[in-house]
Amino acid sequence: KAEAAAAAKAALKPSVNVGGRVFIDSAVFGQNDESMDQVGDAENAMKVRWAWVELKGNMLENTEYRLWFDLAGQVSLLDVYLDFGELPYIQNFRVGHFFEPWGMEQLTPNKYLTTMERASPFNLGRNMGIMAHSNNDEANWTYGVGLFVSEVGSKPPFYQNDNDSSAITGRVTYLPWYDEASGGRGLIHVGAGYSWRHLGDGTAQFQNRPDSALAPIIVDTGVINADSYQQLELEAAYAYGSFILQSEYHIASIDTDDFGSEALNHYYIQASYVLTGENRAYNRKSGSFANRVVPYENFFRVRTEDNYICNGWGAWELAYRFAHDDLNSDNIFGGRDHRHLVGLNWYLSPFSRAMFEYVYSNTEDQVASDGVLQIFQMRMQYDF
Amino acid sequence: KAEAAAAAKAALKPSVNVGGRVFIDSAVFGQNDESMDQVGDAENAMKVRWAWVELKGNMLENTEYRLWFDLAGQVSLLDVYLDFGELPYIQNFRVGHFFEPWGMEQLTPNKYLTTMERASPFNLGRNMGIMAHSNNDEANWTYGVGLFVSEVGSKPPFYQNDNDSSAITGRVTYLPWYDEASGGRGLIHVGAGYSWRHLGDGTAQFQNRPDSALAPIIVDTGVINADSYQQLELEAAYAYGSFILQSEYHIASIDTDDFGSEALNHYYIQASYVLTGENRAYNRKSGSFANRVVPYENFFRVRTEDNYICNGWGAWELAYRFAHDDLNSDNIFGGRDHRHLVGLNWYLSPFSRAMFEYVYSNTEDQVASDGVLQIFQMRMQYDF
Amino acid sequence: KAEAAAAAKAALKPSVNVGGRVFIDSAVFGQNDESMDQVGDAENAMKVRWAWVELKGNMLENTEYRLWFDLAGQVSLLDVYLDFGELPYIQNFRVGHFFEPWGMEQLTPNKYLTTMERASPFNLGRNMGIMAHSNNDEANWTYGVGLFVSEVGSKPPFYQNDNDSSAITGRVTYLPWYDEASGGRGLIHVGAGYSWRHLGDGTAQFQNRPDSALAPIIVDTGVINADSYQQLELEAAYAYGSFILQSEYHIASIDTDDFGSEALNHYYIQASYVLTGENRAYNRKSGSFANRVVPYENFFRVRTEDNYICNGWGAWELAYRFAHDDLNSDNIFGGRDHRHLVGLNWYLSPFSRAMFEYVYSNTEDQVASDGVLQIFQMRMQYDF
Repeated sequence: KAEAAAAAKAALKPSVNVGGRVFIDSAVFGQNDESMDQVGDAENAMKVRWAWVELKGNMLENTEYRLWFDLAGQVSLLDVYLDFGELPYIQNFRVGHFFEPWGMEQLTPNKYLTTMERASPFNLGRNMGIMAHSNNDEANWTYGVGLFVSEVGSKPPFYQNDNDSSAITGRVTYLPWYDEASGGRGLIHVGAGYSWRHLGDGTAQFQNRPDSALAPIIVDTGVINADSYQQLELEAAYAYGSFILQSEYHIASIDTDDFGSEALNHYYIQASYVLTGENRAYNRKSGSFANRVVPYENFFRVRTEDNYICNGWGAWELAYRFAHDDLNSDNIFGGRDHRHLVGLNWYLSPFSRAMFEYVYSNTEDQVASDGVLQIFQMRMQYDF
Repeated sequence: KAEAAAAAKAALKPSVNVGGRVFIDSAVFGQNDESMDQVGDAENAMKVRWAWVELKGNMLENTEYRLWFDLAGQVSLLDVYLDFGELPYIQNFRVGHFFEPWGMEQLTPNKYLTTMERASPFNLGRNMGIMAHSNNDEANWTYGVGLFVSEVGSKPPFYQNDNDSSAITGRVTYLPWYDEASGGRGLIHVGAGYSWRHLGDGTAQFQNRPDSALAPIIVDTGVINADSYQQLELEAAYAYGSFILQSEYHIASIDTDDFGSEALNHYYIQASYVLTGENRAYNRKSGSFANRVVPYENFFRVRTEDNYICNGWGAWELAYRFAHDDLNSDNIFGGRDHRHLVGLNWYLSPFSRAMFEYVYSNTEDQVASDGVLQIFQMRMQYDF
Repeated sequence: KAEAAAAAKAALKPSVNVGGRVFIDSAVFGQNDESMDQVGDAENAMKVRWAWVELKGNMLENTEYRLWFDLAGQVSLLDVYLDFGELPYIQNFRVGHFFEPWGMEQLTPNKYLTTMERASPFNLGRNMGIMAHSNNDEANWTYGVGLFVSEVGSKPPFYQNDNDSSAITGRVTYLPWYDEASGGRGLIHVGAGYSWRHLGDGTAQFQNRPDSALAPIIVDTGVINADSYQQLELEAAYAYGSFILQSEYHIASIDTDDFGSEALNHYYIQASYVLTGENRAYNRKSGSFANRVVPYENFFRVRTEDNYICNGWGAWELAYRFAHDDLNSDNIFGGRDHRHLVGLNWYLSPFSRAMFEYVYSNTEDQVASDGVLQIFQMRMQYDF
């Protein structure tokens, strides 16, 4: 009887899974004089980019929780939420601190990104809020719509203002073609997102780095006095076997206090190919390529019994991305930048990879034109 | 043989259990002019109140350890101790950083509290020290007595002063009536605690917020020059089925440098009732209601095979508390406050709840009388 | 089939082990007037010295990972690395943030150290880098050689400078005698290490505390303008049963900008004996005494059925260390210190101990000679 009670109690207890991820980055910079004038000297650097600890599990049959945090610097909270599943009509309901439903690249976890950093200055990041969303891995569409409090940049998640700084954000995606027979090795994805954001403190700011967390900020609008702004995003992707082509267009329309409505935009187009034949599977729950590249053969190098050296080479992926930020409008002068990125990713195993990237960034701002910043960067990544 | 050695080694290893708890709070404030004069504008706010990670387990057969920390803001250490059990005479001995044995409400873990925050400005919190205490879940009494170093407010636990800032604190509780047949669904609890505290730096300060972590401090003595102070607390509680009535009275007597002995006090009386018939069980080890409300039926809402929508409603609890802080004495002018709190708690499952509270606080200080601060606050809580 | 896939997936997943360690220190100081002049008043103190959380596991068959962090104060990253094993020629390859291969005492984990703190001002600590090293627990030798970025003192690991601050460090150890029959209860160890360090920011500084983390810094060179420096260390140890004798000599040669080459040095000699007959086993992978003292009988104190009180006493270890720091050279005046340390360690179980130490430190610097600082310190330690 005591055993049965203990078993019942254990069945009741939430499960706990412990995981983590570690990214270590290094970068070497080359600049022309114009770039020096624009951003000063970009010093070569090395850094623990992320050191995440991830606790997650299930409560009851259909509720998931997360408590994820980063330790690389000040401790900061990442995904911290409860997600109720199997609900009628809305499918899933989430409450806590999590990514707003915006953008294919934002919704791809950083450990699965093809490149070291995301491209857009208009990604919304994690905020506190509530969200209804789909969670169906056999459907050709996804949706997410939520109400958020805008506390970008604050650690820990905290918001304090009598004038509320709320946002409503939604996204839908659809698969016009999905090759069921091959488990999605061929597909076409389209999607769109929209966000309306009230600014509690009456200011907005947009800025970006050139595809590197160690690089300086190259485009920056400075503080814009505004009551609200809207953002729209369009996405499209095509996958065929080891090849993926994906693109996003982001536009922000800011209702400024001083000049009326002003528009800023960004787009990128990215192609990647796994040379060794593996593919990055599409995730039908999140509407993005949120999955591992699982090498056919892991990296190893051992001496056999016969004293031969035996090798496995892992998986190798080649990537290219062109990105363009336009943070200039009639009365906002944040600068313009376009960047070419060439990347080579080496998957030693499904859980560890080395990334090598070259970025050529060309910036025009109020200080100078044709500021060229070149970056050679490297990442060592593992997760568990 | 290797297996036996591995098994022996495994038996030797401490067990490790990973847990956590997350509280997310939001609050909206209403103030009259007097309150504005007293504390300024209380801005509406939203916050991750707590994000705890809890490691605990057993070493050997009768020693427990804890390493608990909070990540909501600066990382801070909570329970960090070793507890030796089954000792003759004293039962249990604890060394490390933990709650001083003081007050029924302080010794109720925050995840089990009926209200969002504790009431008293005289709770002692966690400090570094050693403690002998009982740990018997079949006895009608508990005791705890310990020697502590007073390092209130410091993160991490740290104390540095040639004039030691030590404290001795003890508490006893007794159950004049405990209905064994129903497992304690009916009981009467009485208790008392005492603390003598030497002030290494020669200063003391008492302050309080009105039952909300997001509210401003409303009563505050400022720095009092003193060598030592004493605190006494009395507790009583009555539980019958789903109904609990509990009360505490705290008094502090400060041996000030400038004015001789001065006394400050606080009391609260709290009633709660679980509308859906469940009860919060009494914990005979800690002498407090340190237990979950386990809903008869968890919250769920699913579509059945017949396309009907099927609901479970969880447990619902109603609470009321009246609290009174008097931080005025002949020569100390910290202010007086009394508060009415009405709360509604929704237990979605044993491990998650939503809390809704309304607080009406009336403060008198040196600036103004009848400063009214009204609070509507909400919490989303889960633990694992 | 689904089960087989799940099993295959599980086999693929990295393992995760959660551990931790907690040290709580307190210290009382006695000083003569000269010491007061030298370092001011050393105030008595109590502190959570370390509160580590340790995640580690295996990826694939031969790759280990770690993500260790400390929470006692600002969160800081400790061991954060991937270690690839079973490689031909080099055996093991490590990349991330970890201890440079230097010094028998540095490479003994703090939870296994005989004394509360390490002795030398020339220990190199953890840095970001790559390292080839041996990992053979049946060999009579070890080696480690790595390339590092010098970011001593930075939390989180971060380095930014166009003039790279790189270091190359190596260490070899050898066992001229190792008694295989008794599993190494008798052995002689010798070792040597070398580090060449380029200073990116053109400055170096050496300082030390007298064997206590709560004590003030007693010797300190201040900032030395230099381009690079080299360090050499020699080690020797002798173990026979419960007795261990070990010693290290460290010398640093600094290529100063202003005075040419200047040399500083340190040595210690340490003896320890486990009174109750246990021994601290030698670790042939790391070339140090990196192992637990496992008491024959754990500490316990229980009342038997016959109402007798029954005791176990754990293990008791006695230690003595003489250490000498010479941070004076022709043109550098960091001071000289020599210290006697007497320690008594009580192992309650393999995973918990109490440490009691008395340190008598005699310092000579530019302010005064014969500054005597006496320390009585205590540690409560557990790990899991």
